[in-house]
Amino acid sequence: MSRLIDELKKLPGVGTKSAQRFAFHLLRSSDEDAAALADAVRELKASLRLCSICNNVTDVDPCAYCSSPVRNQRLICVVEEPTSIASVERTRGYMGVYHVLHGTLSPLHGVGPDQLRSANLLARVERGGVDEVILATSPTLEGEATASWLATALRNLTQRSEALQGKTVKITRIATGVPAGSDIEYADEVTMSRAMEGRREL
Amino acid sequence: MSRLIDELKKLPGVGTKSAQRFAFHLLRSSDEDAAALADAVRELKASLRLCSICNNVTDVDPCAYCSSPVRNQRLICVVEEPTSIASVERTRGYMGVYHVLHGTLSPLHGVGPDQLRSANLLARVERGGVDEVILATSPTLEGEATASWLATALRNLTQRSEALQGKTVKITRIATGVPAGSDIEYADEVTMSRAMEGRREL
Repeated sequence: MSRLIDELKKLPGVGTKSAQRFAFHLLRSSDEDAAALADAVRELKASLRLCSICNNVTDVDPCAYCSSPVRNQRLICVVEEPTSIASVERTRGYMGVYHVLHGTLSPLHGVGPDQLRSANLLARVERGGVDEVILATSPTLEGEATASWLATALRNLTQRSEALQGKTVKITRIATGVPAGSDIEYADEVTMSRAMEGRREL
Repeated sequence: MSRLIDELKKLPGVGTKSAQRFAFHLLRSSDEDAAALADAVRELKASLRLCSICNNVTDVDPCAYCSSPVRNQRLICVVEEPTSIASVERTRGYMGVYHVLHGTLSPLHGVGPDQLRSANLLARVERGGVDEVILATSPTLEGEATASWLATALRNLTQRSEALQGKTVKITRIATGVPAGSDIEYADEVTMSRAMEGRREL
């Protein structure tokens, strides 16, 4: 029992109290239900893995995006988490592929460049198979720091890559600005500054 | 009494009930208080007017922005309401002047191009004293329609203006995108689409 409670406490947001409640619930459940949960946990790890190309969570390797013949494999959108892909897919306008970092730079939490899964992105760009990298990390403190670090790393890389032979890889950042449908009077000053700086010619 | 109630009901958001409450409050107040309110209303109209250059609410004509020697009078930021100026000023990064439309196009509410105060903006641009017009209406349905109508009107104008002699006036639109400090997972699909379309090269 206490071994189960200790394991349940490793789940995010679950403390001793919740873990005990879960454990007692499982104790009272039928043998089948408990077995089903145990199997589902085991199967998850057996069937899901990270795509070796883009780090997305997938059951086949490479993932559906990286193996898609209709997607532009030379256009990469870099996101923080596998769940961020859904935000970009909802736009129905993006037909490139992805790269998942599984986090952002966060020195306070001990996340440096080495803890991010960026090595396979850099390798992919260095091999010369990429035209544009869109940095779609969130416009938060950590997301901006990550985008700026990646932009520098990618620029240094493309300058010394032999496969690229002087070809430039476009490095772009998604727009920060006033959200669609909202009034500029509700925009905070940082957002409004960025909206003014990022103005585009019509 | 009923004349006062009728006049109070013309204020935005004030119905019969509120107007009666206001009227009875004034009845109970001292003579001085009632006189002070009446004078303040009269003085407002006597002392405040719209700037003849930019339509901003002001006590001197031209307003403080239009007569400022340190502001770039050749850079105009077009906003919907006088209160929108505060949103742009809070960025502390804008050193141009303004133009207030006093509304947005809204065919459903009977607001067409003729109801907007745009004539003095067009005249100012036509005289050739302007390098760039930033369209800072909100990214709402009405704000976008207004920006797009104004962009067309300004382009037509600059093409036939003799004072401009072939010089182009830059027409720009503030950026729509993910607000600063917010996670892309909370961005709706229209905002995310615009953030992707409006991406900028780093």
